[in-house]
Amino acid sequence: MQILLTNDDGIYATGIVAINKTLREIGEVVVVAPEAERSGVSHSITWAHPLRLRKAYVENEFFGYAVSGSPADCVKMAAMEIMQERPELVVSGMNLGVNVGIHVLYSGTVAASIEGSILGIPSVAVSIDVSGYTDLEYAAIIARDIIKQVIKNKLPKCTLMNINIPSVKREEIKGIRLTRQCTRGFEESVDRRKDPGGGTYYWLVGGTEVAVEEKGTDIQAVQDGYVSITPLRYDLTDHNLLDSLGSWDWKGVEEDICKAKGILNK
Amino acid sequence: MQILLTNDDGIYATGIVAINKTLREIGEVVVVAPEAERSGVSHSITWAHPLRLRKAYVENEFFGYAVSGSPADCVKMAAMEIMQERPELVVSGMNLGVNVGIHVLYSGTVAASIEGSILGIPSVAVSIDVSGYTDLEYAAIIARDIIKQVIKNKLPKCTLMNINIPSVKREEIKGIRLTRQCTRGFEESVDRRKDPGGGTYYWLVGGTEVAVEEKGTDIQAVQDGYVSITPLRYDLTDHNLLDSLGSWDWKGVEEDICKAKGILNK
Repeated sequence: MQILLTNDDGIYATGIVAINKTLREIGEVVVVAPEAERSGVSHSITWAHPLRLRKAYVENEFFGYAVSGSPADCVKMAAMEIMQERPELVVSGMNLGVNVGIHVLYSGTVAASIEGSILGIPSVAVSIDVSGYTDLEYAAIIARDIIKQVIKNKLPKCTLMNINIPSVKREEIKGIRLTRQCTRGFEESVDRRKDPGGGTYYWLVGGTEVAVEEKGTDIQAVQDGYVSITPLRYDLTDHNLLDSLGSWDWKGVEEDICKAKGILNK
Repeated sequence: MQILLTNDDGIYATGIVAINKTLREIGEVVVVAPEAERSGVSHSITWAHPLRLRKAYVENEFFGYAVSGSPADCVKMAAMEIMQERPELVVSGMNLGVNVGIHVLYSGTVAASIEGSILGIPSVAVSIDVSGYTDLEYAAIIARDIIKQVIKNKLPKCTLMNINIPSVKREEIKGIRLTRQCTRGFEESVDRRKDPGGGTYYWLVGGTEVAVEEKGTDIQAVQDGYVSITPLRYDLTDHNLLDSLGSWDWKGVEEDICKAKGILNK
């Protein structure tokens, strides 16, 4: 099995080195990852500039390909340029830091996995909480075993699996929870400062979780010491709302569009 | 009504100037937009560098705030730093180029609108197809009228509205369709070239739509000459798959996690 491994922490990150080891037990791993950290770039793609590609030898562990772009770029480059055949599995991670709740939307790690799914390849994102005790080696074993199940059970079209591993010692992991993405916002603020020349600059300060118990979410699972597995889907359509939109009173909409032609069908 | 207007084409783009005019008819508009084009940056946020902010006077039309970051950064900066009170509506656009199908995922325009929704503010993304005849003035009228309906009918939590306007003359617009996001991939390739020094570089070549008739999608609506309205939701959880994951055979998963503790609940 040909596995494409990428991440958003960059090709030299310890997380990708750790998971590369256990993935090699289930297939041939090709690593194509950003040349440096690209955290928080979400599903960015590089279209206004060309990309560069170079071979990288990482920690005496593997040869890989370092790309000058985003995680999503890496998946495109791997599938269309680097790998002889399309990968049969895309793994993104292991990210140092959880990708749960709305951070799923900002995450380059998850976006790379979404990109794999768009290309029709079974795809998984793996992240580990690093706020407490961090056992990358054991996390990579857990990820490998869950990924084996994904391969065996297969994923429906347009989906991917988002795995988050808690920050506790291996014997303290409580189990696995199948979860939904928490949609809660975060405590955020802006920190205004002066540079040495007197100019004003701003830091976005974010990511502090609001302490709310919310059953069934990815955030709650990791906080409780569980491995969280969340099935994601990149169709953003709100089908419930779509079903009810037809009953809205649309008659205020510009006459040419709505009154005269009166068409509001799906 | 306080309206925050942003985009991903940059504060000097013609699309934001056009829609600013019609939005002023329904409220007080504060423009906070990227200082230059940020297309394709998706939901990127700037956390590793500080942001800069400056006032901009655009086309003798409005004063706005130019931010050195992404569209999502603009929404955060507006809500937390620039505006005295939280905006009651976020509009992102009008983007020159449709944001339909999987382009919704790459789009900075849509991401800004998602960011507004995360902050609990009714949010709308507006884009116009520019492949044929482009009437920005009329598109801005259509957008205004649809936005009025959104204000009147209200949006559920975690949702936003994605509006796309076709590239035809105003009298040729066939009506409005309520649509779903097309999940089809695009024809893509990589264009390998040599720089003057003999080094290899790569262009991602993408975005050519596969010609497939697919009823009910955003792509199809715009191609057929309809205004497309797609309700989006930023909860990526695949709830159907989540419901069936419990019945997977999980017994291969690392003994410590699964067999010994046997926990696989939601």
